Amino acid sequence: MYPVVPGHEITGVVIKVGCNAGKFKIGDRVGVGCLAASCLKCEFCADSQENYCDQMQFTYNGIFWDGSITYGGYSNVIVADYRYVVRIPENLPMDSVAPLLCAGITVFSPLKDNGMLGSPGKKMGVVGLGGLGHVAVKFGKAFGHHVTVLSTSPSKETEAKGRLGADDFIVSTNSQQMQAGKRSLDFILDTVSAQHSLGPILELLKVDGTLVTVGAPDQPLELPPFPLIFGKRSVKGSMTGGMRDTQEMMDLCGKHNITCDVEVIAPDTINEAMDRLAKNDVRYRFVIDIAGRISNI
Amino acid sequence: MYPVVPGHEITGVVIKVGCNAGKFKIGDRVGVGCLAASCLKCEFCADSQENYCDQMQFTYNGIFWDGSITYGGYSNVIVADYRYVVRIPENLPMDSVAPLLCAGITVFSPLKDNGMLGSPGKKMGVVGLGGLGHVAVKFGKAFGHHVTVLSTSPSKETEAKGRLGADDFIVSTNSQQMQAGKRSLDFILDTVSAQHSLGPILELLKVDGTLVTVGAPDQPLELPPFPLIFGKRSVKGSMTGGMRDTQEMMDLCGKHNITCDVEVIAPDTINEAMDRLAKNDVRYRFVIDIAGRISNI
Repeated sequence: MYPVVPGHEITGVVIKVGCNAGKFKIGDRVGVGCLAASCLKCEFCADSQENYCDQMQFTYNGIFWDGSITYGGYSNVIVADYRYVVRIPENLPMDSVAPLLCAGITVFSPLKDNGMLGSPGKKMGVVGLGGLGHVAVKFGKAFGHHVTVLSTSPSKETEAKGRLGADDFIVSTNSQQMQAGKRSLDFILDTVSAQHSLGPILELLKVDGTLVTVGAPDQPLELPPFPLIFGKRSVKGSMTGGMRDTQEMMDLCGKHNITCDVEVIAPDTINEAMDRLAKNDVRYRFVIDIAGRISNI
Repeated sequence: MYPVVPGHEITGVVIKVGCNAGKFKIGDRVGVGCLAASCLKCEFCADSQENYCDQMQFTYNGIFWDGSITYGGYSNVIVADYRYVVRIPENLPMDSVAPLLCAGITVFSPLKDNGMLGSPGKKMGVVGLGGLGHVAVKFGKAFGHHVTVLSTSPSKETEAKGRLGADDFIVSTNSQQMQAGKRSLDFILDTVSAQHSLGPILELLKVDGTLVTVGAPDQPLELPPFPLIFGKRSVKGSMTGGMRDTQEMMDLCGKHNITCDVEVIAPDTINEAMDRLAKNDVRYRFVIDIAGRISNI
């Protein structure tokens, strides 16, 4: 629906509140993620899994309560319902915290859902080291797991093990490394959004292990049944997260001092950033400083 | 490895016991399924999930304890280790019980694993009405669930709802019926061994629902990520079952009087049966009366 105003990893300061703004007041540091509205009546809304409400509306190009089209964060102001707003911990900067609102919750939610929170010492795999993958590595380490990064790019090993603190690195095109890793992981988070076969990756899981896919290729994934069947393994989907989990993630990020690695750009370089994005030339998210005063926030 | 003696859904009477035959004695009615041996030391053997032991050996064309090749049930005798033998309830006939030893346990095990045993009232789907599917329907009904059969053949509706007792029937190529069934099922057992897309079937699952695939197509399954992601759904594999579960299933079949629908043939018509099998012309399993005395057992 045109015109479109994109942007769904949004941080800012409350400048105005309505008569029903929950606990928020002017001056609060807040974030808005993927969700703008949901039915508030179904079992998913009741359980703060608003992301699975079948009337859920996205922050942009959705339909708001009043029937208007929702406009996202490429703007100097946004109107949001307090139910879909989270608080940002005081110790975290507004720029590098922004991508937590989609990339962050997208990888946090399946970790929490699949018993990876509060049970340290698991063997966790992260497929793909990009906007989502690098946050997953940080979460995995913060939650006490042994983290293995899988990537097609051998060049990412230094980055993964050095700066991000991963324990292990497997080049997924190296059959020897893949063979050696068989039946070694409890849980895999697959963040790759290009089409790929899940077969070789599934072999890395222990029996009864789970792979959660959060990347969303246009084309179907290839799922060879044998690694699934012979290992009683699961492939599960997960889409962003509900508001309670988003706040919990944000608070944990405050506690563990986790943010995303970002490159802050000015609004007038968006087109250039888009070109670089298409070439995967960003480490790992562009954040647009709409207000032109990140340093003052 | 040739010569091959196939057959892994075997029933018979104990005619000889060794010095370590567990509780078995001459004259016992027993069954042997897929498994001939496993390491007995690993975590899976310890938990009677011998089917996931990585040294597990099949009933035929496997390597037995003594290094010999295992030969299956197309024979008038078979030597089996007592650990991989189950008792057959007195009230069940030896012919129609035989396919429970693979087809039966293959569908029982994922039902048990996924909370479908002891929790009646779930909405369960069965994809494909063949050797595995028809037993799954019987289990689903015996365990108190609402069972929907999905099939590409509209002609199977009478059979499914009439004789097998299914509650509902969806023609999986009928988009109207598929649309009406969206988000309606808690659990789906997919028994189809031909290549197919899981996308439309997954849409039938509620949020957080699970589809277990037990059919094993040669070609990868098509797994479109969106139905998986937008519904936080799982696709899981499962391969036969362990010995404790096999005995539990057999006892439950005795209690609920569940057997497979079979067509008993004489050994000299095996080739003809194989030709019919290739055309799916059997309802639902051929059982070979090797001893020529089914009626006397």
